[in-house]
Amino acid sequence: MKIEVWSDFACPFCYIGKRRLEQAIEKFPHRDSVEIEFKSFELDPNSPKDIDMNIHEILSQKYGMSVEQAKQMNANVGKQADEVGLTYHFDTMIPTNTFDAHRLAKYAADNGLGAQMNERLLKAYFTDSKKISDPNTLADLAEEIGLHRNEALTILSGTNFSDSVRADEEEARQLGITGVPFFVLNEKYAISGAQPVEAFSNALQMVWDEIKTPLKIINPKKSKSEYCTGEGCEVTEE
Amino acid sequence: MKIEVWSDFACPFCYIGKRRLEQAIEKFPHRDSVEIEFKSFELDPNSPKDIDMNIHEILSQKYGMSVEQAKQMNANVGKQADEVGLTYHFDTMIPTNTFDAHRLAKYAADNGLGAQMNERLLKAYFTDSKKISDPNTLADLAEEIGLHRNEALTILSGTNFSDSVRADEEEARQLGITGVPFFVLNEKYAISGAQPVEAFSNALQMVWDEIKTPLKIINPKKSKSEYCTGEGCEVTEE
Repeated sequence: MKIEVWSDFACPFCYIGKRRLEQAIEKFPHRDSVEIEFKSFELDPNSPKDIDMNIHEILSQKYGMSVEQAKQMNANVGKQADEVGLTYHFDTMIPTNTFDAHRLAKYAADNGLGAQMNERLLKAYFTDSKKISDPNTLADLAEEIGLHRNEALTILSGTNFSDSVRADEEEARQLGITGVPFFVLNEKYAISGAQPVEAFSNALQMVWDEIKTPLKIINPKKSKSEYCTGEGCEVTEE
Repeated sequence: MKIEVWSDFACPFCYIGKRRLEQAIEKFPHRDSVEIEFKSFELDPNSPKDIDMNIHEILSQKYGMSVEQAKQMNANVGKQADEVGLTYHFDTMIPTNTFDAHRLAKYAADNGLGAQMNERLLKAYFTDSKKISDPNTLADLAEEIGLHRNEALTILSGTNFSDSVRADEEEARQLGITGVPFFVLNEKYAISGAQPVEAFSNALQMVWDEIKTPLKIINPKKSKSEYCTGEGCEVTEE
């Protein structure tokens, strides 16, 4: 079973949704058959790398609310993060452009470390208050999960993997995906948003049942069925 | 779209069903996307190569009917063959074991000529009254469709491709296939027997529509959907 996950590293519900999916998979009896592929999705492709506001101020400006109200909203999201074992430090989070982080994740995926890089980047942003557009920061994170620091720096200084990131985003556009996290199971079923663990569990089971369903016979009713067996040939009116 | 066809070369409804499927594909607007794979299925794996009865006598014995009645039954099948442009010569047909013909078809498929060999073998049996267990006859047929006569003879004198034939039959067993022709569309939907052209057309369209269906969103009703877009993050009660 293949699960494609479109998400951004600066998307609070993406990290929460990822954890809920992982918890559902952990409880799923056929978890060894589940394969996750992470896909790029930038919430704000035009975001500058350097932003001289904190996350509360950005939110306050975006929604036209007071900074206090924004803090309360973030606290609510933080509480949900807590519930799945994540720690969000909104006060020190460094909002930035995530394009290079996505390129790095693609480079990691190319080296079989996509899942690790994805997790590390989310933690870097939400928990460690790292600036995930800074090449040295990104290279450090790459090295942490077992990639070559210098190779990562070379990748980051160029335009490598830009096409892969754009291709994921184009695919999202074609699928009508406007928000993340967005989960696609076996290229057919989709879950939008950070659903409860139980919703992921049900989806996993549903898709699994479908995979395991024996062939669906679609002979039209009332049609003649003409076939042969070891016993001879038959014309049956069904 | 992939269509797997389990059939035997000595199965009258297999050739008729094949033609009906082909006619449906010919009329199908997306015919270029359809790929057919022929699978082996022996109606009578224990059949001897040499049988000193004609097809009417075999039928008469099998069903406990008179030879005249058997002739009438065969004439009815022959009429259906006519209707799809096939000519069945029941009087001179040579009943035999089809295992080597299946091995030859596998060898042909290995050389990209599976469809051609399949068609040629069916015609050889039903129309040309060939003995399709005779190595020289089989090698002639192989040569006709562009294979090397001597290579075919070598294959036939050994046991090559026996495993491929058996694997198809084992797969059929696992899918619960007891009679042929049996058509499996995209490993999911099945048509049993030589259905009318229209039934194949409907099935092709149904499977095509399913392939082209956009993602099915399976978010549970009444669940909170937590996601982020370029405009910000949302918690909606759906």
